[in-house]
Amino acid sequence: MTKAIPDIVIGRLPIYLRALQNMATEGRQVTSSQELGERLGISAAQIRKDLSQFGEFGKQGTGYNIEFLSKQVKEILRVDRVWNVAIVGAGDIGSALANYSGFAQRGFKIEMILDNDPAIIGTEQKGFIVRDIRKIKEELSASDIQVAMIAVPSAHAQLVADQLVDAGVRAILNYAPVSINAPNGVRVQHIDPSVHLQRMTYYLD
Amino acid sequence: MTKAIPDIVIGRLPIYLRALQNMATEGRQVTSSQELGERLGISAAQIRKDLSQFGEFGKQGTGYNIEFLSKQVKEILRVDRVWNVAIVGAGDIGSALANYSGFAQRGFKIEMILDNDPAIIGTEQKGFIVRDIRKIKEELSASDIQVAMIAVPSAHAQLVADQLVDAGVRAILNYAPVSINAPNGVRVQHIDPSVHLQRMTYYLD
Repeated sequence: MTKAIPDIVIGRLPIYLRALQNMATEGRQVTSSQELGERLGISAAQIRKDLSQFGEFGKQGTGYNIEFLSKQVKEILRVDRVWNVAIVGAGDIGSALANYSGFAQRGFKIEMILDNDPAIIGTEQKGFIVRDIRKIKEELSASDIQVAMIAVPSAHAQLVADQLVDAGVRAILNYAPVSINAPNGVRVQHIDPSVHLQRMTYYLD
Repeated sequence: MTKAIPDIVIGRLPIYLRALQNMATEGRQVTSSQELGERLGISAAQIRKDLSQFGEFGKQGTGYNIEFLSKQVKEILRVDRVWNVAIVGAGDIGSALANYSGFAQRGFKIEMILDNDPAIIGTEQKGFIVRDIRKIKEELSASDIQVAMIAVPSAHAQLVADQLVDAGVRAILNYAPVSINAPNGVRVQHIDPSVHLQRMTYYLD
């Protein structure tokens, strides 16, 4: 059992992993906390401190082996396996997510897309036959899905979240611009571009 | 001149504002830090502490007037005005953003969409005539655009960011799954669903 590590540290690990994977794609083999820090706008000391919470991944003076460190961070984040993911909502955002190429190398596979609109249930969207949200529980349990993304109108987001939890989902990424609640043991993250934009306009004069 | 307030506090204000605006839509007039906290999964004490950094917005025992507090938070976040926004990249994500209804009430107006693909420059996407990225500087300055979203492939993201900065943009929301750098005085935020998903899978066993 790992000792509790602050969630803010956990939140930085995927950023480190992404940078490491990008470096590997560039054909690189070794990096340093300094170089990672410059790429990411995070101090080298912070990166060393974060990584040291999980073990000793580099030798003083020789830096990090990119392939080795990537593998270790993947294991820590449990993306050394592939998680099947359901998308609820086959509108613009759901369709863009279904077609997004950035999941495959990061531990996720879009497995299905569900909607409540009779006009599109059964039709093909980005290579997926849209399934009926009313059958969510049997669809998800049949496909071992514990991770889902919500891309429905705000008014339906909490109901969909409740249905996902009832169907066994334990990690929800919510694109509806409203906060949703989930019971203990279920993680929720929100993506809302207006929230990110407003966090920046504060600094504009 | 405001005293420096931690960015993590600034980051919570848009969440509070969203909840307040949702309550207003529901026809509500008064709320409390307790109720906000329950909706958002943030402690009431934290909410009171955050808001108190900017002034005195509620009376002990009577709670917050939703309309008044919304107005104040909008002013703090500088979204009591409308910011014109450019989208770079007319693929799935850019198109979904161009069509997204969640900006209008939150201080943002999608003003234009740009791309580098001759096959789609000049065509209509979600009601916008796609403009030529090679003319980015004149297009942006003609429309008073200081806020932009990047929805291009990773390999082009930094170049686009540099072009945006050169054209006067000071706040960039980056959807490409790669970290981008910008000079001092330019804010950057990243949206990457895999990063959010990996932050949750850490906790799944």
